[in-house]
Amino acid sequence: MTKRMGSQTVAINSNVSLLSGAAIAGKKEGEGPLKKYFDTILEDAEWGEQTWEKTESKMQKEAVITAINKANCRVNDIHYIFAGDLLNQCIGTSFGIRELQFPFFGLYGACSTMAESISLSAMMIDGGFAQTCVAATSSHFCTAERQYRMPLEYGGQRTPTAQWTVTGAGAAVLASGGTGPYITHITTGKIVDMGVKDANNMGGAMAPAAIDTLKAHFEDTGRMPNYYDLIVTGDLGQIGSEIVKELMPDMGYDMSQNYNDCGCMIFDMEKQDVHAGGSGCGCSAITLTGYLLEQLKTKAINNLLFVATGALLSPTSTLQGESIPSIAHAVAISNTMNA
Amino acid sequence: MTKRMGSQTVAINSNVSLLSGAAIAGKKEGEGPLKKYFDTILEDAEWGEQTWEKTESKMQKEAVITAINKANCRVNDIHYIFAGDLLNQCIGTSFGIRELQFPFFGLYGACSTMAESISLSAMMIDGGFAQTCVAATSSHFCTAERQYRMPLEYGGQRTPTAQWTVTGAGAAVLASGGTGPYITHITTGKIVDMGVKDANNMGGAMAPAAIDTLKAHFEDTGRMPNYYDLIVTGDLGQIGSEIVKELMPDMGYDMSQNYNDCGCMIFDMEKQDVHAGGSGCGCSAITLTGYLLEQLKTKAINNLLFVATGALLSPTSTLQGESIPSIAHAVAISNTMNA
Repeated sequence: MTKRMGSQTVAINSNVSLLSGAAIAGKKEGEGPLKKYFDTILEDAEWGEQTWEKTESKMQKEAVITAINKANCRVNDIHYIFAGDLLNQCIGTSFGIRELQFPFFGLYGACSTMAESISLSAMMIDGGFAQTCVAATSSHFCTAERQYRMPLEYGGQRTPTAQWTVTGAGAAVLASGGTGPYITHITTGKIVDMGVKDANNMGGAMAPAAIDTLKAHFEDTGRMPNYYDLIVTGDLGQIGSEIVKELMPDMGYDMSQNYNDCGCMIFDMEKQDVHAGGSGCGCSAITLTGYLLEQLKTKAINNLLFVATGALLSPTSTLQGESIPSIAHAVAISNTMNA
Repeated sequence: MTKRMGSQTVAINSNVSLLSGAAIAGKKEGEGPLKKYFDTILEDAEWGEQTWEKTESKMQKEAVITAINKANCRVNDIHYIFAGDLLNQCIGTSFGIRELQFPFFGLYGACSTMAESISLSAMMIDGGFAQTCVAATSSHFCTAERQYRMPLEYGGQRTPTAQWTVTGAGAAVLASGGTGPYITHITTGKIVDMGVKDANNMGGAMAPAAIDTLKAHFEDTGRMPNYYDLIVTGDLGQIGSEIVKELMPDMGYDMSQNYNDCGCMIFDMEKQDVHAGGSGCGCSAITLTGYLLEQLKTKAINNLLFVATGALLSPTSTLQGESIPSIAHAVAISNTMNA
């Protein structure tokens, strides 16, 4: 069977199962609507560590270990780990997983990392290079705020379009065989930059990338949106997901019945004062490894299209007057083998 | 044929050729011993751009376009690009390649990125997911200095163990078929951290990771060092490569006749005042895509083991008292098919 479908999609023809997922969530996320799906909820921002960066590393490590335990794997069974995060030089990951001693491919995909890591894990397994892989990522509100924006102590006012970086670490174990849910298709995004320069409106900047990847996925696979029980984008929040809802029908894709965004799902948008919604690598990661995977395992949904989105800017590029290049990667997950 | 060999190595069983390489080098690098192997040598640090970060992005873009042209590929033939760099949020890459419109997997492997990007490209092609891939990375002395160390205008004194970040961008085109040289084996590194905390001695910090990966490669493949005409590490410089030379024989691996380090090869260590040698993603990248690839194509060498090394620290982790997690990835390249 051919693996390539169209210009951006490949089919995973062998059985590659999402064996298990683990979600470590922050306190605020643990007060939100998905709280019962998280493995661990932190009681404070530090979790016993002296710096927030060390907390984030500890979260990523715990997510990986928890996912491996839930999959009943031995550590020696893990052939590769694909992981990354938002911190400069991805230290959330490198310090988080350094004791685990897995062959490691470091990724930087901003908030698209969970889809990127699952994509590469699934392709490595389907390609015969690995039996079992781990895909992982993390973000932390406090590490992100001080790195990207302001010292937290400054208490800066946030704009209405700003999103709240999720404190969360997600990890998934993927393996050849298993009883599903199965990774069936991977649509890899291109960089899309429509010229948005407002770093306080990441949802608006990333929405065109999500639309571009969704369109490619539907064209490449010949599927229409109603094939899926649920289509979720990563962290477009209210502004970005409204753009998706408005523009997809113009291209002939009706997603009015089965579309949502992890940035809108993870918080109670009425009560939790997160402005335009959640963001960060952890947002789509723990929504997937916590809530969505459970929905698949219980057959509440059977076909999921998971589209994580990333804004590939830095504070330096913004200071230099640049716009925000964005990307989105899509992973189709199904309870049906070779769906 | 089985693809997995031992715990960290896979064999690339189909013919995956390194079709072409391109090397864009800075002025200082263009005055060094490898100058005649570079496609373009910059006349100054800016190359017509207003900021060094924009220069680095332009270098990476030009390296990719040059490599594609040299491979006689059409842009539409490129199924994936694997790329990353040292800058916060990898903006050298995201702004460099945003106009090229290739499906993009962003990597962060610090100075190991060229080996990481080639590893994943080769596996994607061998696994049947792509016909042609691009692997790319870059570094720039000025962007690295101001991000990791001091404002350049400050003119800080450098320690004797410090290395000089190479201004360089390298890109390689890999494809199924072709006439070689062929990627034959991939040994993926684990994070190794022996507790070195001196961010001015990266070679010393990274040497144990290089040794760990070399040892894994020899054990997994059953090869001895003399199988290779040349074994090169990425950017250990004088300090780190001395450690490799000293410790490998203790483990039964004699590399006295065929080992060198890109950080020692790229500069004239006597005359160019680079202290312990070159470093940065661009160091091993342009040594490979410029000099080493030419040596393979002219059969001056026929079997190369390319081991790029990365230090996975950040200025924040150093300020928080952390040691330096390091990694090394090895790629075996041969003029003989299925060697």
